[in-house]
Amino acid sequence: MAAEEAAVRAQADTVRRLKQDKADPDEIAKEVTKLLEMKAQLGADAGKHKFVLKTPKGTRDFGPKEMAIREKAFRAIVSCFKRHGAEVIDTPVFELKETLTGKYGEDSKLIYDLKDQGGELLSLRYDLTVPFARYLAMNKITNIKRYHIAKVYRRDNPAMTRGRYREFYQCDFDIAGQFDPMIPDAECLKIVHEILSDLQLGDFVIKVNDRRILDGMFAVCGVPDSKFRTICSSVDKLDKMPWEEVRSEMVGEKGLSPEAADRIGEYVQLHGGLDLIERLLQDPKLSQNKLAKEGLGDMKLLFEYLTLFGITGKISFDLSLARGLDYYTGVIFEAVLLQQDNEHGEEPVGVGSVAGGGRYDGLVGMFDPKGRKVPCVGVSIGIERIFSILEQRLEASEEKVRTTETQVLVASAQKKLLEERLKLISELWDAGIKAEMLYKKNPKLLNQLQYCEDTGIPLVAIVGEQELKDGVVKLRIVATREEVNVRRESLVEEIRIRTSQC
Amino acid sequence: MAAEEAAVRAQADTVRRLKQDKADPDEIAKEVTKLLEMKAQLGADAGKHKFVLKTPKGTRDFGPKEMAIREKAFRAIVSCFKRHGAEVIDTPVFELKETLTGKYGEDSKLIYDLKDQGGELLSLRYDLTVPFARYLAMNKITNIKRYHIAKVYRRDNPAMTRGRYREFYQCDFDIAGQFDPMIPDAECLKIVHEILSDLQLGDFVIKVNDRRILDGMFAVCGVPDSKFRTICSSVDKLDKMPWEEVRSEMVGEKGLSPEAADRIGEYVQLHGGLDLIERLLQDPKLSQNKLAKEGLGDMKLLFEYLTLFGITGKISFDLSLARGLDYYTGVIFEAVLLQQDNEHGEEPVGVGSVAGGGRYDGLVGMFDPKGRKVPCVGVSIGIERIFSILEQRLEASEEKVRTTETQVLVASAQKKLLEERLKLISELWDAGIKAEMLYKKNPKLLNQLQYCEDTGIPLVAIVGEQELKDGVVKLRIVATREEVNVRRESLVEEIRIRTSQC
Repeated sequence: MAAEEAAVRAQADTVRRLKQDKADPDEIAKEVTKLLEMKAQLGADAGKHKFVLKTPKGTRDFGPKEMAIREKAFRAIVSCFKRHGAEVIDTPVFELKETLTGKYGEDSKLIYDLKDQGGELLSLRYDLTVPFARYLAMNKITNIKRYHIAKVYRRDNPAMTRGRYREFYQCDFDIAGQFDPMIPDAECLKIVHEILSDLQLGDFVIKVNDRRILDGMFAVCGVPDSKFRTICSSVDKLDKMPWEEVRSEMVGEKGLSPEAADRIGEYVQLHGGLDLIERLLQDPKLSQNKLAKEGLGDMKLLFEYLTLFGITGKISFDLSLARGLDYYTGVIFEAVLLQQDNEHGEEPVGVGSVAGGGRYDGLVGMFDPKGRKVPCVGVSIGIERIFSILEQRLEASEEKVRTTETQVLVASAQKKLLEERLKLISELWDAGIKAEMLYKKNPKLLNQLQYCEDTGIPLVAIVGEQELKDGVVKLRIVATREEVNVRRESLVEEIRIRTSQC
Repeated sequence: MAAEEAAVRAQADTVRRLKQDKADPDEIAKEVTKLLEMKAQLGADAGKHKFVLKTPKGTRDFGPKEMAIREKAFRAIVSCFKRHGAEVIDTPVFELKETLTGKYGEDSKLIYDLKDQGGELLSLRYDLTVPFARYLAMNKITNIKRYHIAKVYRRDNPAMTRGRYREFYQCDFDIAGQFDPMIPDAECLKIVHEILSDLQLGDFVIKVNDRRILDGMFAVCGVPDSKFRTICSSVDKLDKMPWEEVRSEMVGEKGLSPEAADRIGEYVQLHGGLDLIERLLQDPKLSQNKLAKEGLGDMKLLFEYLTLFGITGKISFDLSLARGLDYYTGVIFEAVLLQQDNEHGEEPVGVGSVAGGGRYDGLVGMFDPKGRKVPCVGVSIGIERIFSILEQRLEASEEKVRTTETQVLVASAQKKLLEERLKLISELWDAGIKAEMLYKKNPKLLNQLQYCEDTGIPLVAIVGEQELKDGVVKLRIVATREEVNVRRESLVEEIRIRTSQC
């Protein structure tokens, strides 16, 4: 509709212009007829529906201010990934639908499909892990450490204030290859620790568990194998629901025996450190289960490495951590920010997960024609919630963020100096100076100075009749209002020196 | 399929493991039964179709090497955009379908729609210009200079070797606002000139024209108003087809009179500079047409500004330039790389457009409920073709590109030093040093040194029994094989100094 309306308005303009210009009456008549036809047509279309001016549900634009915050966060994350020697890759935003099939368990219903317009059936990527596994299998890569920062898509119920969107960024770091146990896994946790500390988001805890411990726990609690995954995703809800609700879901919806549920209930309350691992290694039931024993052994090793990294203080071995996704096979973890302003003495409350990951040794094999496995472990930083925290913080503190890096405004004191401004700014651009000018023939000096105040431009290069005669440019320092005449040939150097921090 | 096959393999592994471990016979039996059921099921599914391991048609992955090139190109482009004082924004990858409706003329058929899964009807963005206009109208912004680098989507016939993809990047710079004529337009051309020069892609020419000149030309050639747009898109094909074919499309398919076509044929051969503009301002027919006169007047002004920028040498006023998109209202332009190795004396041949843009004063008004107009002019860099040129060039020159920035590898000379390596690398990471280690308990020194050779890591920090006793670390410079003992407390500083260029 908007398009047609605009077309009519454009046609009306044409008619008006022709009349003003006293154009040939026939031409005017012709255009008027056209206008009337278009209006009639528009009337016929009208009321069909009203055009809504918005972004799709669960998505948002990033304006210059939000981008400044976003790029600051990305810089911190990328520099950490590079510090750990990661390469970077990128994959298409959509994949063949069948590439995503059977990877996400109950979450598959949240995948965005593209319309079948002939050709291949496509879906928007749901995470960066499955495309990574597809990339490894496709290129027969058995050994890589890479990061990937890109948008992923989930048809979930958005809660934008809490940073939950349908289009959102993930910052993934993964280590693929056959290595000695727990060394790459420990590095992933170190990375989460470094990034969350670096971004200064307040206190946090990284919960750690292992799919093998969970499966062993389910087995000894008497959960039938067929129910492992679905019971696992019930346990996964423990961070959002109280145990009672989760229990009734297990027993009611998923038909688990009350006894089994209650045995699970005892385990999932447990969280701690090496002490707990040792205790469970002695647990009469768990210690008898092969998978649980493997998992607990590796968990012990992991904690030894984390001790060497000096980060066990923020790590909690937590039997209630399950992670929704199907493809995890070993260690899993999730980082949670802790409530800042909680009552003295209370145990801190989680305000939502900002990072998660784990080991998925079977995923690449799903794509390899011969089923060759490439063991992988990785972490994903959930950056959107971090954005909203940083944005709220910036709102609170009224500090002014610059959204450009302009070093100097090329201004003029008198009229008729547009050509001189164009010549000077062109010299500055060619010398690599970040320079702007107002797009007016004869701007008022006051407006030009005001523009610098508003946008935080530190310097003004003022051309005037006299300066041109003397072969100088008047350089004004906006903060101090100090003005100095600089010889034109040394202007670039002078600007560089005075804005060296940029 | 792959998923089910992998599941079967996983189940087979379980059975094998249980047997190895001499597990409880009943448990083994149960798992075997399960395995057989799964195999049966798989057999039933088999032959349905075979899973193909690929990216969707017209898309590609970027591996570490391609990313190195891509980021190099982006750095050059972004630094130019920032040099001209642009802010940055981002918008969602999809828009409401109706947001894109009626903006692209004949190209609309190339838009990717998302499947209707309930809720809003969505399409992937086709360019960054329409989302930008939607963003301005939605936020009532009447004045902004911004850049936006993101992927866009077109269901076109891909020609990947020539850099034409269905998913590809655009790097857009736009100036929105009511300003004095041709000043922002001139800056857009200056930007194209700076970027193409900076990327050293060889010789290029920037063709310039104006929609008003084209429409005026069509009018004086006797093209009926109703046919302006469709004839315009025929003219747009002149860079790919000879005039004869374009003419027969105009006359045959589009029902234009042969006389009108021939008159157009005369004009579209013309290209030149200020001289041509002057000549056309005297042209008995064109000079009588209001639109053409406006367009030619502005074109003259534009060339005056481009002369001050000193770039007219690469600018060609070309009456055959039309640009496909519907939304242009004034100046249009397109940058073309010229054939490097062409026969001496020949006129250089274009090898495809790498940038284009123009003025679109009506587009924002299409979105504004009250039709308020925001004049805009912008440029879009078609980066994919630039990537493929840079990639081919890199292939040719066998120079080795590093895909990581790692400064030092933490290595050990003897066995049983994993803990010491973990302690040291953790210290280095915390000090901001980019460090890696091999994920093995007891790696051979030779393999550790080889890893540095392969990946270009310049330094190796070697821990050994003796060094630990002496409180030093042996620092090896890979290039020279020189080795120095550095006191542990000054290791960070030493690494910084020796890798200061990083």
